[in-house]
Amino acid sequence: MVTVGIIGATGYAGVELLRILLRHPHVKYIYCSSVSFEGQNIDDVYPNLKGMLGDKCGRVLLSADEIKEKADILFTALPHGIAEQYADYCVKNGKKLIDLSADFRYGTDEATFTKWYKKTWDFPEVHQECVYGSPEMNRESIRSARIIGNPGCYVTSVTLGLLPALKNSLVDVNTIIADSKSGVTGAGRNPSMTNQFCECGESFSAYKVGNHRHQSEIERNLSILAGTKANVIFTPHLIPQNRGILSTIYAPLTQSAAGTIAAEAEKRGCTPDEVVRDIYRKTYENEPFVRVLDAGVNATTRVVRYSNFCDIQVYVVNGGKMLEVVSCLDNMIKGAAGQAVQNMNLMYGFGETEAIDFVPPAF
Amino acid sequence: MVTVGIIGATGYAGVELLRILLRHPHVKYIYCSSVSFEGQNIDDVYPNLKGMLGDKCGRVLLSADEIKEKADILFTALPHGIAEQYADYCVKNGKKLIDLSADFRYGTDEATFTKWYKKTWDFPEVHQECVYGSPEMNRESIRSARIIGNPGCYVTSVTLGLLPALKNSLVDVNTIIADSKSGVTGAGRNPSMTNQFCECGESFSAYKVGNHRHQSEIERNLSILAGTKANVIFTPHLIPQNRGILSTIYAPLTQSAAGTIAAEAEKRGCTPDEVVRDIYRKTYENEPFVRVLDAGVNATTRVVRYSNFCDIQVYVVNGGKMLEVVSCLDNMIKGAAGQAVQNMNLMYGFGETEAIDFVPPAF
Amino acid sequence: MVTVGIIGATGYAGVELLRILLRHPHVKYIYCSSVSFEGQNIDDVYPNLKGMLGDKCGRVLLSADEIKEKADILFTALPHGIAEQYADYCVKNGKKLIDLSADFRYGTDEATFTKWYKKTWDFPEVHQECVYGSPEMNRESIRSARIIGNPGCYVTSVTLGLLPALKNSLVDVNTIIADSKSGVTGAGRNPSMTNQFCECGESFSAYKVGNHRHQSEIERNLSILAGTKANVIFTPHLIPQNRGILSTIYAPLTQSAAGTIAAEAEKRGCTPDEVVRDIYRKTYENEPFVRVLDAGVNATTRVVRYSNFCDIQVYVVNGGKMLEVVSCLDNMIKGAAGQAVQNMNLMYGFGETEAIDFVPPAF
Amino acid sequence: MVTVGIIGATGYAGVELLRILLRHPHVKYIYCSSVSFEGQNIDDVYPNLKGMLGDKCGRVLLSADEIKEKADILFTALPHGIAEQYADYCVKNGKKLIDLSADFRYGTDEATFTKWYKKTWDFPEVHQECVYGSPEMNRESIRSARIIGNPGCYVTSVTLGLLPALKNSLVDVNTIIADSKSGVTGAGRNPSMTNQFCECGESFSAYKVGNHRHQSEIERNLSILAGTKANVIFTPHLIPQNRGILSTIYAPLTQSAAGTIAAEAEKRGCTPDEVVRDIYRKTYENEPFVRVLDAGVNATTRVVRYSNFCDIQVYVVNGGKMLEVVSCLDNMIKGAAGQAVQNMNLMYGFGETEAIDFVPPAF
Repeated sequence: MVTVGIIGATGYAGVELLRILLRHPHVKYIYCSSVSFEGQNIDDVYPNLKGMLGDKCGRVLLSADEIKEKADILFTALPHGIAEQYADYCVKNGKKLIDLSADFRYGTDEATFTKWYKKTWDFPEVHQECVYGSPEMNRESIRSARIIGNPGCYVTSVTLGLLPALKNSLVDVNTIIADSKSGVTGAGRNPSMTNQFCECGESFSAYKVGNHRHQSEIERNLSILAGTKANVIFTPHLIPQNRGILSTIYAPLTQSAAGTIAAEAEKRGCTPDEVVRDIYRKTYENEPFVRVLDAGVNATTRVVRYSNFCDIQVYVVNGGKMLEVVSCLDNMIKGAAGQAVQNMNLMYGFGETEAIDFVPPAF
Repeated sequence: MVTVGIIGATGYAGVELLRILLRHPHVKYIYCSSVSFEGQNIDDVYPNLKGMLGDKCGRVLLSADEIKEKADILFTALPHGIAEQYADYCVKNGKKLIDLSADFRYGTDEATFTKWYKKTWDFPEVHQECVYGSPEMNRESIRSARIIGNPGCYVTSVTLGLLPALKNSLVDVNTIIADSKSGVTGAGRNPSMTNQFCECGESFSAYKVGNHRHQSEIERNLSILAGTKANVIFTPHLIPQNRGILSTIYAPLTQSAAGTIAAEAEKRGCTPDEVVRDIYRKTYENEPFVRVLDAGVNATTRVVRYSNFCDIQVYVVNGGKMLEVVSCLDNMIKGAAGQAVQNMNLMYGFGETEAIDFVPPAF
Repeated sequence: MVTVGIIGATGYAGVELLRILLRHPHVKYIYCSSVSFEGQNIDDVYPNLKGMLGDKCGRVLLSADEIKEKADILFTALPHGIAEQYADYCVKNGKKLIDLSADFRYGTDEATFTKWYKKTWDFPEVHQECVYGSPEMNRESIRSARIIGNPGCYVTSVTLGLLPALKNSLVDVNTIIADSKSGVTGAGRNPSMTNQFCECGESFSAYKVGNHRHQSEIERNLSILAGTKANVIFTPHLIPQNRGILSTIYAPLTQSAAGTIAAEAEKRGCTPDEVVRDIYRKTYENEPFVRVLDAGVNATTRVVRYSNFCDIQVYVVNGGKMLEVVSCLDNMIKGAAGQAVQNMNLMYGFGETEAIDFVPPAF
Repeated sequence: MVTVGIIGATGYAGVELLRILLRHPHVKYIYCSSVSFEGQNIDDVYPNLKGMLGDKCGRVLLSADEIKEKADILFTALPHGIAEQYADYCVKNGKKLIDLSADFRYGTDEATFTKWYKKTWDFPEVHQECVYGSPEMNRESIRSARIIGNPGCYVTSVTLGLLPALKNSLVDVNTIIADSKSGVTGAGRNPSMTNQFCECGESFSAYKVGNHRHQSEIERNLSILAGTKANVIFTPHLIPQNRGILSTIYAPLTQSAAGTIAAEAEKRGCTPDEVVRDIYRKTYENEPFVRVLDAGVNATTRVVRYSNFCDIQVYVVNGGKMLEVVSCLDNMIKGAAGQAVQNMNLMYGFGETEAIDFVPPAF
């Protein structure tokens, strides 16, 4: 049983973490902090929580400093640039920390972080400790990690969409296109003109074309997986719905892979899609939260909402020369809070699916 | 541990039942039937279920006749007029049944059922057995019931919205107005022009004004609670959202109640709202799934989505003469599948909140 | 040909006015002002306007003081409490003004205005001039008015929903219930937590129960039409859609009216609904923007979107004792900018439907 | 003044055509036909039209055969494979026809049409007459055409998004990626499970990956514009909104174009985006319905809704090697009915923007 602290519990990711942890069988108690709402009751800020805290969660929102002492593990769900101090504290005090911002997603590569986030590191040494919290990439290192950089939401959808192709050297990573679409929760809770209902409703647009920060994190992951520098053209779009990310990914098959796939398809009398699908299935066969879809089934954000699943559909297009992957997940769960709990489960040796094995609702 | 059969598992209520029961700790196994999809896999019909069935649910959709023999308890989630035969079978074979249609909502009052549903009963004697499955009205009888008529979705929101007022004789039941609004899941899964996205999207309307069948069920409940014939003006509306019912209810306070409330408010130096709120709180103090909201908090469908809660806010308006109640719930859960599982829990002596104590998500 | 000034052109009502006036055949030129965006181009603030200004509208947002001198008629689309000074200026300088705030909706009844809007009048004498801009109530006075108080959006739906009943003394005005629902544009453009997409999406709630300011304006109108003090229970709700207001109105028929209606229905062999519908049709037969719907047709916000129509459906319920009216309109058009242009057309003797005779789109 | 017939007036495109033509100053009278609703009143099928037909449109839905004789010009808004007979009739009887299906979009290339639409032509000779109705591609031929194949909705967004790049030989057409997203009106009015509100709401997915028919039409257009065979990877997606298409298009710059653009950007001290933007602006400078957006403005479906505009934003990404274009339009207007009227205007020498110069609403 662990005692948990959520620093930044009133943001979208923070409150989703709380919702999940309230039903976690190995969580003894949860403390929550908030800068904006310190001293208020969390179930006044979020009336959905009314009556749900029981004796498992402190009702009053504390300061971060208060809870860092009480908890065994901290979740920091804050804007980037704030978590380092808590990570340093945890390392020095034998505690663990899972950060949901970008602060610990770049390993020890401060230069890339600084380039995209316009900030240098205050505690460079603590980054030596950190592990990138993608269970599908780093399960074993996560188990023994003390500091986790929880992956970005868009990033998770693209990384998982390409991981088997990269591990099996199917694609050329020089010109990967990731055309991603996200529901509005991705923008966080702070009121803004852009996120007003009337601006988003009945509206669809691309934004930050060519300069969204997640591009650098995607490129980092794909480069690691491919063993060579990857270039990604990443275009995020805003969908008029609350939850969900869907990435449509275009990756040129290497000439050699294209040939092998075509030959295999002919031999088996199946489509090239099926050949690649089997490779994906094989790669993910032990993954509890990745579902490679059957032929004919469209990856659909509604189908993974409120679950920790990433659903993946694969196609071979352009006369056998291009791999096209459609990958979708719930940006608040597998893209944030759910994956963070998955990481916690690994770090403590709990069942990996504890508290996040939701059956997604049909509607 | 019980073995469950869901007859009509591919409708909206049926698949929501399945989702809940898959995580029920006292359910051993679930069999599902479907007329439209018999022989298919349920996780092909509903891809959200892919990988979730484990060894707890049969994948292939069977016929109703097959599963009725295998199960200890049947849930019938069918159009009205079909469940009677299964209820008769259950009574004769020592099994239990919870019906989600209107068939068992009228006690032994066949006349009213027939008037509104244009159908007489085939097995009148089985209706002697049935209990109306509102735990807040009938908890004790439900515990020992064999056949349950699970309440209608709109009906539950109105009944729970008025129950404390009626039990405490606060209102005149001669002209109750229930102005109700429902998300589109309320219309069921069958494709229709009315329920097309482009017809519902960015659209709001009243429908079946003065002749929706739920009016008769509401009137029945209110009459029972009031001990006198209630008249209800019930107007359903369609909201462009998937889930949720909100009923705004207007009930004239009796002259005596109005006087008492005003006097009490003056004595306590509080609003009349607060006086009535306290009566509601007192009435519902032991109810696990009714939340009477604090002053200043709006009842909101989003806040109860994916939970078994009914949230209630009360006001005294029109110069102290009118009680206004806003009551909301998730039509698929407290309005259908969740309440059905609550009934099952009572019938078997399980914890009443088992498998339905969801923390509602903020978004 | 008139030269128009829109003070507050970047709010929702202001920009909708501009959109309409850009296609008005008798408008020569339009000047726009904005406090928040002064000095910027209006088509940068609203990119939908790009390329649409032609030589009919100044591109740069000016100050209110600049445009008040240039224009023949001013539209003030501002928060309440600001328009009086411009009205005073117009009266003194032979210009006209149509105000879209509440400032001129109360005739000379400063007390009621002050009670609800917490503000006294700075230019009481200018209120002597003002006419309430409901063409269906005051067409003739509008023609010669110099200052118009344009009606509230909710108010218009309720007033038009009851006008024929009141003119024909059908209902008792002591306990009128107006259960109204509005799209989110009704809340205006200022970013707020309440109006964020994720707060409104998939959500429905009542708000400001018992204390929304429009109640006082509704009561004023109904009292004028009935010739006696009306009491209204007004409950606004928020719908997850951009545009549209629908009010479901419950008004007890007087005993005498109930009797007459029943007798007439029996004589004609029709429903009581039909009798009342004919009264409504007769009352509105010359109104260009009110449509009394046929039996069986539901009033629907989608069907009046982007039009100046108010659609009305009538029912007699509760055994012939209660009139129920469902009334809907586009809150941005008939509920604001469209009605304002209708008023301008009357004031200048233009065709009443000029520039606002939109054919509403099906979707 | 022309007399118009709409064959298939109750589909989404047909009723949108009617809405536009009702306000066309050179249209004398409109006859409408419908197979599904023949004999009914069109304003009963579409209550938004109530009171709008005036003396300009026949209320009763006729048969196609009745109206083909009465009209000078026919619009056929039907499933593919039906319009040929009417085209043949028009050619033989000195009438004109604009077809909104795919039947006349392939010039005389029956093979490609047959491959994708599984149908041969019944009247091959009439295809000699037909002109592809993209004013931006074929304005002059349209003026004198008798039979027009009106372009597909997705197709228009992609074609206009790439036309300047192709005319200026900027891109390699061997691997064009068009990642397109459409609102649900694109699916037409026939009720289907896929288009039910609860299936689409809060949902986003790709569909028909690699085998949507519009791919062939896109490839045809791009090949014509490029003067060489183009290969397109086209992926359509469904957005939970009614109207709008947005295509995100990725086209590799030729090495030569990349070099020129980079050099020019350096010379001018601007971004490569700006260089390409200027080329786009130059190409479209006389186009009334294409808007090339300023730097920093996102192409957004909401901003073109209810207008005939196609908004285009351009970027140079991937280190100067890839052109990325975001192109959006209203699928019902520029993607269907509006473009059809634009074609009619050209065919009759009316002002090209007559009746379609809508100011798009902000919301």
